[in-house]
Amino acid sequence: RWNEEVIEGKGEAKIVQLFVEGVIAQKAGWNNSFSAEDFLSQLNQAMRDKQVKAVVIRVDSPGGDVVTSDEIYRKIEEVKQSGKPVVVSMGTTAASGGYYISAGADRIFANPSTLTGSLGVIFKIPNYAGAAEWIGYKEYVIKSGKFKDIGNPLRGLTDEEKKIFEELVDESYQRFVDIIVRGRHLPREQVLKIADGRIYSGLQAKALGLIDEFGSLEDATEYAMRKTGLKEAKIVRYTPKFALATFFNGLLQQ
Amino acid sequence: RWNEEVIEGKGEAKIVQLFVEGVIAQKAGWNNSFSAEDFLSQLNQAMRDKQVKAVVIRVDSPGGDVVTSDEIYRKIEEVKQSGKPVVVSMGTTAASGGYYISAGADRIFANPSTLTGSLGVIFKIPNYAGAAEWIGYKEYVIKSGKFKDIGNPLRGLTDEEKKIFEELVDESYQRFVDIIVRGRHLPREQVLKIADGRIYSGLQAKALGLIDEFGSLEDATEYAMRKTGLKEAKIVRYTPKFALATFFNGLLQQ
Amino acid sequence: RWNEEVIEGKGEAKIVQLFVEGVIAQKAGWNNSFSAEDFLSQLNQAMRDKQVKAVVIRVDSPGGDVVTSDEIYRKIEEVKQSGKPVVVSMGTTAASGGYYISAGADRIFANPSTLTGSLGVIFKIPNYAGAAEWIGYKEYVIKSGKFKDIGNPLRGLTDEEKKIFEELVDESYQRFVDIIVRGRHLPREQVLKIADGRIYSGLQAKALGLIDEFGSLEDATEYAMRKTGLKEAKIVRYTPKFALATFFNGLLQQ
Amino acid sequence: RWNEEVIEGKGEAKIVQLFVEGVIAQKAGWNNSFSAEDFLSQLNQAMRDKQVKAVVIRVDSPGGDVVTSDEIYRKIEEVKQSGKPVVVSMGTTAASGGYYISAGADRIFANPSTLTGSLGVIFKIPNYAGAAEWIGYKEYVIKSGKFKDIGNPLRGLTDEEKKIFEELVDESYQRFVDIIVRGRHLPREQVLKIADGRIYSGLQAKALGLIDEFGSLEDATEYAMRKTGLKEAKIVRYTPKFALATFFNGLLQQ
Amino acid sequence: RWNEEVIEGKGEAKIVQLFVEGVIAQKAGWNNSFSAEDFLSQLNQAMRDKQVKAVVIRVDSPGGDVVTSDEIYRKIEEVKQSGKPVVVSMGTTAASGGYYISAGADRIFANPSTLTGSLGVIFKIPNYAGAAEWIGYKEYVIKSGKFKDIGNPLRGLTDEEKKIFEELVDESYQRFVDIIVRGRHLPREQVLKIADGRIYSGLQAKALGLIDEFGSLEDATEYAMRKTGLKEAKIVRYTPKFALATFFNGLLQQ
Amino acid sequence: RWNEEVIEGKGEAKIVQLFVEGVIAQKAGWNNSFSAEDFLSQLNQAMRDKQVKAVVIRVDSPGGDVVTSDEIYRKIEEVKQSGKPVVVSMGTTAASGGYYISAGADRIFANPSTLTGSLGVIFKIPNYAGAAEWIGYKEYVIKSGKFKDIGNPLRGLTDEEKKIFEELVDESYQRFVDIIVRGRHLPREQVLKIADGRIYSGLQAKALGLIDEFGSLEDATEYAMRKTGLKEAKIVRYTPKFALATFFNGLLQQ
Amino acid sequence: RWNEEVIEGKGEAKIVQLFVEGVIAQKAGWNNSFSAEDFLSQLNQAMRDKQVKAVVIRVDSPGGDVVTSDEIYRKIEEVKQSGKPVVVSMGTTAASGGYYISAGADRIFANPSTLTGSLGVIFKIPNYAGAAEWIGYKEYVIKSGKFKDIGNPLRGLTDEEKKIFEELVDESYQRFVDIIVRGRHLPREQVLKIADGRIYSGLQAKALGLIDEFGSLEDATEYAMRKTGLKEAKIVRYTPKFALATFFNGLLQQ
Amino acid sequence: RWNEEVIEGKGEAKIVQLFVEGVIAQKAGWNNSFSAEDFLSQLNQAMRDKQVKAVVIRVDSPGGDVVTSDEIYRKIEEVKQSGKPVVVSMGTTAASGGYYISAGADRIFANPSTLTGSLGVIFKIPNYAGAAEWIGYKEYVIKSGKFKDIGNPLRGLTDEEKKIFEELVDESYQRFVDIIVRGRHLPREQVLKIADGRIYSGLQAKALGLIDEFGSLEDATEYAMRKTGLKEAKIVRYTPKFALATFFNGLLQQ
Repeated sequence: RWNEEVIEGKGEAKIVQLFVEGVIAQKAGWNNSFSAEDFLSQLNQAMRDKQVKAVVIRVDSPGGDVVTSDEIYRKIEEVKQSGKPVVVSMGTTAASGGYYISAGADRIFANPSTLTGSLGVIFKIPNYAGAAEWIGYKEYVIKSGKFKDIGNPLRGLTDEEKKIFEELVDESYQRFVDIIVRGRHLPREQVLKIADGRIYSGLQAKALGLIDEFGSLEDATEYAMRKTGLKEAKIVRYTPKFALATFFNGLLQQ
Repeated sequence: RWNEEVIEGKGEAKIVQLFVEGVIAQKAGWNNSFSAEDFLSQLNQAMRDKQVKAVVIRVDSPGGDVVTSDEIYRKIEEVKQSGKPVVVSMGTTAASGGYYISAGADRIFANPSTLTGSLGVIFKIPNYAGAAEWIGYKEYVIKSGKFKDIGNPLRGLTDEEKKIFEELVDESYQRFVDIIVRGRHLPREQVLKIADGRIYSGLQAKALGLIDEFGSLEDATEYAMRKTGLKEAKIVRYTPKFALATFFNGLLQQ
Repeated sequence: RWNEEVIEGKGEAKIVQLFVEGVIAQKAGWNNSFSAEDFLSQLNQAMRDKQVKAVVIRVDSPGGDVVTSDEIYRKIEEVKQSGKPVVVSMGTTAASGGYYISAGADRIFANPSTLTGSLGVIFKIPNYAGAAEWIGYKEYVIKSGKFKDIGNPLRGLTDEEKKIFEELVDESYQRFVDIIVRGRHLPREQVLKIADGRIYSGLQAKALGLIDEFGSLEDATEYAMRKTGLKEAKIVRYTPKFALATFFNGLLQQ
Repeated sequence: RWNEEVIEGKGEAKIVQLFVEGVIAQKAGWNNSFSAEDFLSQLNQAMRDKQVKAVVIRVDSPGGDVVTSDEIYRKIEEVKQSGKPVVVSMGTTAASGGYYISAGADRIFANPSTLTGSLGVIFKIPNYAGAAEWIGYKEYVIKSGKFKDIGNPLRGLTDEEKKIFEELVDESYQRFVDIIVRGRHLPREQVLKIADGRIYSGLQAKALGLIDEFGSLEDATEYAMRKTGLKEAKIVRYTPKFALATFFNGLLQQ
Repeated sequence: RWNEEVIEGKGEAKIVQLFVEGVIAQKAGWNNSFSAEDFLSQLNQAMRDKQVKAVVIRVDSPGGDVVTSDEIYRKIEEVKQSGKPVVVSMGTTAASGGYYISAGADRIFANPSTLTGSLGVIFKIPNYAGAAEWIGYKEYVIKSGKFKDIGNPLRGLTDEEKKIFEELVDESYQRFVDIIVRGRHLPREQVLKIADGRIYSGLQAKALGLIDEFGSLEDATEYAMRKTGLKEAKIVRYTPKFALATFFNGLLQQ
Repeated sequence: RWNEEVIEGKGEAKIVQLFVEGVIAQKAGWNNSFSAEDFLSQLNQAMRDKQVKAVVIRVDSPGGDVVTSDEIYRKIEEVKQSGKPVVVSMGTTAASGGYYISAGADRIFANPSTLTGSLGVIFKIPNYAGAAEWIGYKEYVIKSGKFKDIGNPLRGLTDEEKKIFEELVDESYQRFVDIIVRGRHLPREQVLKIADGRIYSGLQAKALGLIDEFGSLEDATEYAMRKTGLKEAKIVRYTPKFALATFFNGLLQQ
Repeated sequence: RWNEEVIEGKGEAKIVQLFVEGVIAQKAGWNNSFSAEDFLSQLNQAMRDKQVKAVVIRVDSPGGDVVTSDEIYRKIEEVKQSGKPVVVSMGTTAASGGYYISAGADRIFANPSTLTGSLGVIFKIPNYAGAAEWIGYKEYVIKSGKFKDIGNPLRGLTDEEKKIFEELVDESYQRFVDIIVRGRHLPREQVLKIADGRIYSGLQAKALGLIDEFGSLEDATEYAMRKTGLKEAKIVRYTPKFALATFFNGLLQQ
Repeated sequence: RWNEEVIEGKGEAKIVQLFVEGVIAQKAGWNNSFSAEDFLSQLNQAMRDKQVKAVVIRVDSPGGDVVTSDEIYRKIEEVKQSGKPVVVSMGTTAASGGYYISAGADRIFANPSTLTGSLGVIFKIPNYAGAAEWIGYKEYVIKSGKFKDIGNPLRGLTDEEKKIFEELVDESYQRFVDIIVRGRHLPREQVLKIADGRIYSGLQAKALGLIDEFGSLEDATEYAMRKTGLKEAKIVRYTPKFALATFFNGLLQQ
């Protein structure tokens, strides 16, 4: 499903460079160009292509959707289990979900100034009660259960509702901690201390064991080549196939 | 009416992946790309195609229109009765109507962080009385029956009117409960306790019997293949047929 | 004037599915895609086509224009008198004018959650007096008769004017009641009690005799086939003919 | 100048259906599609075409420009004098100028709920004095005669000016009354009583003698056919001729 | 420079229908389609074309630019002196400058409800002093003569300035009166009395001698034919020539 | 550089009609179509073309840029010195810079209602201090000389600054007066009295010696022909050459 | 890199007319069409072309970027040193940076009304503190050095910061003065007196020695021809080369 | 991957001119045209091309992203180590990150008025608490760790949070200082004194040792040629390759 663009190098073996840039979400949207659906399909193609010997992932993301981050994490695990090393190169930012998907990589590269960390989970419940009052808008709600309009932005949260959300947050948090414990081989107590949402520089992250090494995308790619013991390899990226039918369907469905 | 795009695999047998993404409504609109009309037609095509051995539905929806959800639910029941297993894979969210349509599936997969639940029915009666007063707008209403302007956003609800709406909500709620009781083989009293509108994580939902297993779209597809006892099968998706006439008619009717 | 698109089935006999979706008005507009002119022309084509054995109408409409609803109602009566059964399938909403046009059908299907009812007639006289005062706008009116600016949105209604409007509303209401009495074979007193503008769910509507049966568009279509005693029939829909001249005229007149 | 589109029927004789839809004005504009210039030209073509045996006019208009209504009325009189019956079919609304142009028809059909009447003439003199003061705008007027800025929206009307406008309104009103007296064969005193600007339903209008019969566009067309004693006839509508030059001129002058 | 479109009739002789619709100005603009430059060029073409026997001008204009009205008036005088009668047909409005250009015609037709009159001249000096103060805008003016910023919208008029404008208005007014005296053969005192800016209906205008006859554009055209003693003639209108170069130049200069 | 469009006439000799319409500026802009650069180039072409015997300039402009007006004035002087008469025809307005460029013509035609005069020079120094304070904007200015931010719209003018501007205005004014003295052969004292910024009608301007004669563009063109003693001549206008390269360059640089 | 467009003249020798119109900046932008990059490249082409004997620069600019002005100034010096005279023709405005780049020319022409001067340097530090407070916006700044947020528009300037800016301004000012001293052969003390930011008319500028002569672009070009002792020469301008690749690249990068 | 455009010169050897214009970021965006990804790829191409003997970088940037600046800095170091001199030419501004990437160059040219300096690092934490209160918006935050919503713009920073940010800023600052110490061979104490965020003119920067020489892009290029000892060389720039597929892919992904 994806074309290969050769960036440099030659030979039969390939090392693939993939990109997670922007907010992590299932599909690309008008203000976000990252599509997990496409990314997972790229990981699948790399995993099944015998010529691909290693995968390098450039992560430049402040995080995003929890479920999507988890599905990417699991797919990366699968790639690793197929015997292909996965190396992460962090860009300017690789925080929250951006770290989640990196946690399982065989090696993590970052710049000393990379912003990472923000380990944890957050829910924001908007509340427009004031604005609604201002423009003179009210709403009468008829519901079948007392929690059916939980998170209704025209009123605040009750204590019971807060507890429901807190449990959801805690659950996800524990999973995040597990991921780090397993991926970075750190004791759980230490991860719990680190994972308080705090932002770390690459420098601090290295001291804490959250990353392995300083370096750029090129450094990460060279590491991947060394790791696979290859003498020569093509560095490739994936670009979408162009199909005329797709073009017109796109127009039709817009 | 729908073209098949092969995602992977080969052989004559097919497993179809369908998608319910976005708000559930009869037709797609400018801010919503899901069309129940198209989805029902896809289910029909899958049901009638002898080569299709199972249907996998990816649900990523916060819910939507009650009648439409019910029509999708019933069509899924029909597919099951035609002897083809239906497996649901929940994405980030499968709440309210998104759960309603999933309830009858042979097996439900979700991520531990999937947001589901919100079981129940809700009506919101808007009230712009304040805003109308602010811009100096009034309206004199002449009606043939005292309820003819029920829900008029320029005034509040009377007690009688509230009761009318409450009955409508309760009726729909009872049907929702029935669906879950039947689909998940849970005792009615237990469903009544669970179905208070509360949001559940995938983890909680599994404990409560609302889902069966953790896993992604791929896991759900593999389960479907196992269930049908197939050795090899093509995984297909449906895409719209391109017709030039449609293209120009589209332009004309815009 | 209309092309036929075959949805499924085969043979010479045809059952036509027509759609009343959106607000009922004479012509389609920028925010409404239903055109009574087109719909009446479709009913005529179905009535005159010998191969068409029955007509199924999907109604998903909150109502609309009184005269237009009545013209559609009468045309449906004519179709019935030509010996072809007319079956209505209600969608999410079939209220007010949406019920008016359904009332004469040979059989009405709905979902238990369908919103219907709202039987009656309503006039809303806007009043911008406050807004005009706010932006400092006045108007001096010179009129040939004291009612010539009845409904002027810059002033309120006089008692005499209210009476004029009330008589108009009552007249239309009585006609609405007649339609239901005749179409649903209900005693007039009972209809008068029901027709107070109240909204009913499909469930309630069935109890009150306003609909006949629960079911979807497919169920309604199957009923129509049974009713006509056909073994096999093509289910068809009507789509507009494409004409290049129309295309360019459209551009010219825009 | 106009193409004929055959709606149904056959043979040499023709009955033409013309449409007055929207506000009555000399030319179509961005928010109004009716053009009296085109309509008069269609009436001329129908009058001169020997094959045309009768004209049916569908009126769906709240009224509009007095002079234009009068020119249409006179042209219709001319058509009648050429020996071709003119039948009017009223749609949802045929009020004020919409009635004026119908008044001379050989027979008027309407729906019982059609809104008609509003017989009379009205002038509205806008007054923005308040708004101008609000945004701090003034204007010094130098005029050659004391009435030269009559109707200036930045000041009110003087008593003399009101009298000028009242005389203009009364004159037009008397002509309107004459038209009805002559067209509907009603005594002048009775028309004066009816023509107070009041809105009538089709039902009331029939009782008052303002219309002849209930029925739709089809009923009106059938009446026209009966009236001309024809056995068979083509029902035709007029559509604009397409000319490439017109297309490009249109582009140029936009 | 102008193409001829034949409206009806045949033979070698021609009667030309020209149109003054909208505000009278030198060139057409984004909100006005009348161009005096084009209109004068059409009058020239009609005057020089030997086949053209008479000119009919449809006037539907509330007036406009004084100099432009005068240039049209003089050109019409020239057409008359070339021996070709000029007949005016007034539409809904032919006031102020719209009357000025009609005044010299051989015969003026109008509808009884035509709005005409508004004979006179007016200057409006805008004054935004209040608005400027509101948004906090000031301006320091350095001028070479005390009247150099006469009419500056950020201050009022001085008495001297008012006198300058009054003289300009009076001068133009006297010329307007002369035109009417000469064109309509009315005594000057009478015109001075009539020309106080007042609006007249066609009916009143006929009584005052400002128009000759009631009738439409067709009536005016028939009069022109009678007047020239022709048996048969083509009624023609002028449309712009289409030139590809013009098309592209238009694009370039936009 | 300019194409010739023949308006009328024949023979080898040519009289060119040029147009100064809109605000006088170096280049055309989005709200002004006059380009002095183009106009000077047209004057050069006319001057160098041996067949051109006279130039007629239609002026319809309220004035504009002082330097540009002066450059046009000097170029016109040059045309006159090349032995070709220059005749000006004033349209609705020919005030300020519009008069400046006309002052040297061999003969000036105008309509009695033409607005001309406004002889003099004006500078407007905007002052937004109030608005800036309103939206809470301030600015700290560091400058190398005390006048470096002269005219800064966020503060008023100092007395010294006013004097600088007054001298600039007076200088330009004296040059304007010289132009009129020389062009119209009027005594300097008289021009100083006339040139106080006052607006004159064409009638007043004729009395004061500012124009020569009443008449239109055609009259001016006929005068030019008489003046050159020609029997026959082509009246031509200049239109831009169309070049494909220009078209694409235009696209590129937009 | 630039095409030559011949404006007039013939022969092998060339005199090039270049244009500095608008604000002086490195690149053209959406509201400014002057690009120093292009202009420097044009100067280079002129300098290296043996056929070019002299360069005439039309300056119509209120100034702009200091560094860019200086780079243009130095390049003009280089052209002069290559033995080709450089003549400047000032348009409506040639102030500040517009004068800076002119200062070294062999001869400067201007109109008596040209606005020039404004000699000096200015820095404006915006301050939105009030506006930010109004919309409720604050910002917490963490910086590595106390001047790192110098010029932050959400706070005022400290005294130390003012001093930093004053030194920067003074430095640039001294360089500006040097340029004028060297280019115009004026004593430094005199330039210091003149260069106080004051605006001068062309007349005043001539008296002060800032320009040499009155005249237009044509006069400047003729001077250049005289100066080079040429009998005949082509006057040329530079236009961009059109390349299809450029066209598509432009589209791609938009 | 990049085409070469020859600016001037000939021979086999090449000197490449690269451009860093605008804010330094990983990718170009709607309001910024600089893409570090492209720039790094250009540096790679120059480094690997044997014919390229030296690289000249024009820097016109106020700074930007820290990580990206560092990656560019390191790549430039690599180019130098490959034996090719790197020369920087500063434009109007080369401050903060713009200086960071220049610091390692073999020689730095600037204009005396170039704005440089601003050495240091800054973080701005926006705070919309006031605005949110104004429009009546609140938000309830449920987080897994106390720092998970650090920098939340709806509340202020706690002291602990400030400390976290201060450490991040200080770390980056120390790296910046190191870069300068190493690149400019200055003692650390001196750099610490200079690097207080202050802006320097090119003149001051030269005195402080931050730049080497005054001169333009051309001067820098000539220096590079001298340095490499070349007699002749082509000066080249890189432009993107045009590929049709890229064009259509671009359309598809928009």
